[in-house]
Amino acid sequence: MTDFPDSGAAARIRFVLVRTSHPGNIGAAARAIRTMGFSRLSLVAPHSFPHAEASALAAGADDVLAQAAIASDLPAAIADCNFVLGATARRRDVPMDEIDPRVAAGRLLEAAREGEVAIVFGNERTGLENDEMKRCHAAVLIPSDPAFPSLNLAQAVQVLAYELRVRLLGGASPLPAQKTDPPASSAELEAFFEHLARTLDAIDFHKGRSPRTILLRLRRLYLRARPDQRELRMLHGILTDTERASRLMHRDDEE
Amino acid sequence: MTDFPDSGAAARIRFVLVRTSHPGNIGAAARAIRTMGFSRLSLVAPHSFPHAEASALAAGADDVLAQAAIASDLPAAIADCNFVLGATARRRDVPMDEIDPRVAAGRLLEAAREGEVAIVFGNERTGLENDEMKRCHAAVLIPSDPAFPSLNLAQAVQVLAYELRVRLLGGASPLPAQKTDPPASSAELEAFFEHLARTLDAIDFHKGRSPRTILLRLRRLYLRARPDQRELRMLHGILTDTERASRLMHRDDEE
Repeated sequence: MTDFPDSGAAARIRFVLVRTSHPGNIGAAARAIRTMGFSRLSLVAPHSFPHAEASALAAGADDVLAQAAIASDLPAAIADCNFVLGATARRRDVPMDEIDPRVAAGRLLEAAREGEVAIVFGNERTGLENDEMKRCHAAVLIPSDPAFPSLNLAQAVQVLAYELRVRLLGGASPLPAQKTDPPASSAELEAFFEHLARTLDAIDFHKGRSPRTILLRLRRLYLRARPDQRELRMLHGILTDTERASRLMHRDDEE
Repeated sequence: MTDFPDSGAAARIRFVLVRTSHPGNIGAAARAIRTMGFSRLSLVAPHSFPHAEASALAAGADDVLAQAAIASDLPAAIADCNFVLGATARRRDVPMDEIDPRVAAGRLLEAAREGEVAIVFGNERTGLENDEMKRCHAAVLIPSDPAFPSLNLAQAVQVLAYELRVRLLGGASPLPAQKTDPPASSAELEAFFEHLARTLDAIDFHKGRSPRTILLRLRRLYLRARPDQRELRMLHGILTDTERASRLMHRDDEE
């Protein structure tokens, strides 16, 4: 289906559209990714799909629409992905790395050599929610004019698909991955963050401060490191032993 | 109007749409160039313009439409230009240079330092006529999948406008620097690793296994994340609270 030298990596890239309002934009996005040689579209809670307008604007990329995966929420759509980028038109409250589309394409392709990856686009008007952005390893900020940042959804998809294509067709080939263990999936990382939150509670780390901000900062740090499965097991082990110590601490409190 | 360091060059770039059939595409193209910080649109014999659909799809880039120059043929639209590129989705009969969008952006900007330049897009279905292509200094070929080369007009405009913007903003990393804390120094990282080692000992994490291997793995993970100073303070805080919990655990052991 694709014309890339490394069609394996290309086939592991999915474009995820979250809560898209206008079915026409789904069609235009399907066309955009298809022209750039990609085919995998995931739709999270689309407002109207399937829809005649989506098919009309796909302009022949019907196969992309027909094969689109539908999910009810973002975690379900990216559960098996080892690397996830969230597109955004503006700076966010969520503290996380922000990269440009060219860097994003390089990182996505590097990660795609090891497994499934996703690039996520939010609703036309409201973008991605902070809770969704939190699940992304980094934010992709398409550099638009600050005075007029309203990039159309399908055009944002186009820019990213284009950068991926250019990279696949002959950008400098990235160094072979050094890590040998499989990278942790999005679902595995979320389970780790939950364990981390419980443990911080158990050792009374927050002491009246907002756990939310601290957890966001830790999330950013660990997402940036992209732990593999073995590393994640090790981190879980540390948390488990910490919890054990804290249980004894609380027993002590009660005495 | 523009946010470019070299706004003079940006202001000398015009986007020329030739015999556009669908007014919606004119609006979407106006939006695309406006989001990328450009403003000059020329329309050669548009099928319907002005038109409500053009205004609707411009999504606020009305100033670009209002200021659009209208010409009856391509030679009139580009008469004062010193450099003209013609966008095409396919190889042409006309013998001429074919360049990709990134090279095109570089050449356009170089020429724009000396005077007016244009990038020309043909009709949605038929593209530019050979006679029109002949007037261009080179053809810009957006690399699309040969099996599905049908890039939408506004999306072709988007890709070129994006490449021009990236180039104007100064290369591959056009994002302004993020506000971050200073990165941790090597000495600060070493102090953290020592604290981590003490803490793992305190919670009896090793249980007879080699601490050396585990510490090396953790070191690799945290070095990869490149924590800044604030993040490192947070990690120290977690370790300190974990040690506190473990002291109570050991006191408990002794009782």
